[in-house]
Amino acid sequence: MMFDLNSDLGEGFGAWSMGDDDALLEIVTSANIACGFHAGDPSIMRRTCELAVSRGVRIGAHISYRDLAGFGRRAIAVPPRELTDECLYQIGALDAFARAAGDRVRYVKPHGALYNSAAVDGDIARAIAAAVARYGGLSLLGLPGSQHETAAAEAGIEFCAEGFADRAYTSAGTLVPRGRPGSVLDEQSALAQAISIAVDGATRDPDGESVAVPVRSLCVHGDSPGAVAMARAIRDALTGKGIEVGAFT
Amino acid sequence: MMFDLNSDLGEGFGAWSMGDDDALLEIVTSANIACGFHAGDPSIMRRTCELAVSRGVRIGAHISYRDLAGFGRRAIAVPPRELTDECLYQIGALDAFARAAGDRVRYVKPHGALYNSAAVDGDIARAIAAAVARYGGLSLLGLPGSQHETAAAEAGIEFCAEGFADRAYTSAGTLVPRGRPGSVLDEQSALAQAISIAVDGATRDPDGESVAVPVRSLCVHGDSPGAVAMARAIRDALTGKGIEVGAFT
Amino acid sequence: MMFDLNSDLGEGFGAWSMGDDDALLEIVTSANIACGFHAGDPSIMRRTCELAVSRGVRIGAHISYRDLAGFGRRAIAVPPRELTDECLYQIGALDAFARAAGDRVRYVKPHGALYNSAAVDGDIARAIAAAVARYGGLSLLGLPGSQHETAAAEAGIEFCAEGFADRAYTSAGTLVPRGRPGSVLDEQSALAQAISIAVDGATRDPDGESVAVPVRSLCVHGDSPGAVAMARAIRDALTGKGIEVGAFT
Amino acid sequence: MMFDLNSDLGEGFGAWSMGDDDALLEIVTSANIACGFHAGDPSIMRRTCELAVSRGVRIGAHISYRDLAGFGRRAIAVPPRELTDECLYQIGALDAFARAAGDRVRYVKPHGALYNSAAVDGDIARAIAAAVARYGGLSLLGLPGSQHETAAAEAGIEFCAEGFADRAYTSAGTLVPRGRPGSVLDEQSALAQAISIAVDGATRDPDGESVAVPVRSLCVHGDSPGAVAMARAIRDALTGKGIEVGAFT
Repeated sequence: MMFDLNSDLGEGFGAWSMGDDDALLEIVTSANIACGFHAGDPSIMRRTCELAVSRGVRIGAHISYRDLAGFGRRAIAVPPRELTDECLYQIGALDAFARAAGDRVRYVKPHGALYNSAAVDGDIARAIAAAVARYGGLSLLGLPGSQHETAAAEAGIEFCAEGFADRAYTSAGTLVPRGRPGSVLDEQSALAQAISIAVDGATRDPDGESVAVPVRSLCVHGDSPGAVAMARAIRDALTGKGIEVGAFT
Repeated sequence: MMFDLNSDLGEGFGAWSMGDDDALLEIVTSANIACGFHAGDPSIMRRTCELAVSRGVRIGAHISYRDLAGFGRRAIAVPPRELTDECLYQIGALDAFARAAGDRVRYVKPHGALYNSAAVDGDIARAIAAAVARYGGLSLLGLPGSQHETAAAEAGIEFCAEGFADRAYTSAGTLVPRGRPGSVLDEQSALAQAISIAVDGATRDPDGESVAVPVRSLCVHGDSPGAVAMARAIRDALTGKGIEVGAFT
Repeated sequence: MMFDLNSDLGEGFGAWSMGDDDALLEIVTSANIACGFHAGDPSIMRRTCELAVSRGVRIGAHISYRDLAGFGRRAIAVPPRELTDECLYQIGALDAFARAAGDRVRYVKPHGALYNSAAVDGDIARAIAAAVARYGGLSLLGLPGSQHETAAAEAGIEFCAEGFADRAYTSAGTLVPRGRPGSVLDEQSALAQAISIAVDGATRDPDGESVAVPVRSLCVHGDSPGAVAMARAIRDALTGKGIEVGAFT
Repeated sequence: MMFDLNSDLGEGFGAWSMGDDDALLEIVTSANIACGFHAGDPSIMRRTCELAVSRGVRIGAHISYRDLAGFGRRAIAVPPRELTDECLYQIGALDAFARAAGDRVRYVKPHGALYNSAAVDGDIARAIAAAVARYGGLSLLGLPGSQHETAAAEAGIEFCAEGFADRAYTSAGTLVPRGRPGSVLDEQSALAQAISIAVDGATRDPDGESVAVPVRSLCVHGDSPGAVAMARAIRDALTGKGIEVGAFT
């Protein structure tokens, strides 16, 4: 069984850049590529797809609410039927570049506010899953035990659960909300949690009790030099523990 | 040999509508569907694709400069490499809806300022043709004898030439520029020209001399009740002359 | 005391038009002009301001969430501080045209989802009121007894309450939500309610009990020929009852 | 007589940032602030205006074609009347923040492709000047001897000519086009040219002949740490030569 590392890529727009895609593509096995709604213009999408394919990294559509000004971090009350259409639009657009680069879009991961909304709102999760099912041949990447997973099952699409190295988990297996004390782990703890999740499928909650985190992928970040170094340390640590790092698709 | 009628469709955006798509889809055989850059949001794209497929009308990607505010009528100095990417983005996005509706995008037609620029500027025409070739399985619809046609030939893609019923032709076979006296024909003359082009592949220039108009499609409009009636009259007239009206793809 | 009639104007964008602004500007005394976030491009804003000034109609900034694709009808989770900035941006942009036309923006009315959100959410209402106060010299037009009114009072800005001719009121003086049976009145009832509100400051709830509707303005619509005729009928009826129709600012 | 240093500021958008505004605002005396069409969202505009006012730096509206995707570097064929409206929109929007910060917009400088187009195309320059004149109380900052200057004179608005430290000048006093050998000066030469322009109103062309550069402002950049250091070196050098650095408005 392979263990996957995924990261958000192609998040520049026009003259603006973000993150160190080049470094991350040496580390991750799945690339969540922005599709133009929160970030990513056509040329950035093409280049990111070309880079991903040349490194053997799988391409995922990192779909978002239509919100360049808010980087997809603002929830928008889009009716579900229209949301399905907005998702399909983004998947198709990215797939044009993925295919031109010699591969195809393999999976879909909602971004930002859309990710958070769909985790808890079945209507939104089903709207996304409907687009994924309609397009065909795609998996959905999301939170285990969330509406992401339920909607994928209902729609008959493959689901891959992902975890987070640097976020504390509650005893219920959910993430401790950002802003709460201890919600974000320090580097040492994050590295230990990454290994624990990949090797044992579990971590410790703030009280030290074991919590199951049944995931096949970890989401790593690249928005700072420290984040890239952390991502690399996680990959090296997994490899050192004999875990084979590879795409889930 | 079939003779094609094409028209611009799906040109609303959000709360705004334009044209009578429902009526036109009973008349034309090829639908140039807006892809979100000059008009057309994802839900409109889906509905227009579904309607086109249900009527047996072929779907074409009506690609444009990124210009909602100007409806794609403003030329934008986009570097050719980026233009190819912008074209691919639009084609892929529309194809998601075409495939979800049970067909696929069959051809590409540039819209507005992009159409006009590409007709005379080889770099722009080649940038478009590169996207069409890269996507695969698509024809290009454009002006005969223009850079559209040259670029299509160079890129090894099928080209379909189109004519206009209501625009006067010069002795060189080009359109009399809008704004010049006599550039737009009255309804009677337009109907006669449509038949002449479809039956004889020719029309008369302002001096009454015959001009070859070697096209397999006519572009008709639907932006007013009169335009829709005219389009229907053209189709009826062609059928009455024994011309079989059918898609070029 | 004057009684005001207000309406949404300048709601086209680029090639798209909406409503019959010309007819409405003969009827209303206050024009809620779109500022480019849900509708209204700079040229439409200029023309609408010029028309309004030429007819002696007061100009209000019809501010919205940044949502062209959804016509401002989708709530967006914008942090209040950023929302204040988005409101200021729109007010300033419209004021450039109002001043070029010889007047200035006199008031602000939130549009669509922003109007609805601010009516019940104090944070949103205060974010809007902060922009209105910051700009200076402006009133706020909104629902009586709502967070609109509370926030205006807190910010020390003038508030004008508005009512609706064609919407049923509950016994609490709030609008019967759209979609409920009887939420929208027929033309005859709407006309009667308009007069009752303007003359008596009250109407009847669905049980026939009197409800106070303490407003100085009625919002009328122009999105169909029937709506424009209704707006005119309301103005004529008010005038016939001896009510002087005039701007609240 | 004061000599002015101006720079482009507030060029982030949403989650994306660009340049070191904080450092530049310690150096320049005039801030060309993006107005949302090529960069700059409302919150960035507010913060940049607040920073500028707190440092005593004058605020200019850095107006652009509507082109976020191309950062305003793509010429767009906007009809002049609409261009005037687009300029007014941007000026008014920025002025809302400038006034909220306690000052007002003092001048206008076109950005990128709009700057370049207006320098040589009288229609475009006049469209901009019309907006500047219409708004009132504003100067125009641009190239000496260009259509910028001609249009400003015709419109009766104050004009301030600007020069460039790091660009070579032809014997005709125009800039050697980018891409030509020697078009961009090295740091040593740029520093020398800055002093020469500020002290003598002249520099040397590539043949070593003296060329008049009659300007009251120099444009400096902040898009790299080296650029900021260069800007500071220029300011220090001017001060060292006894030139008083201060805003032209």
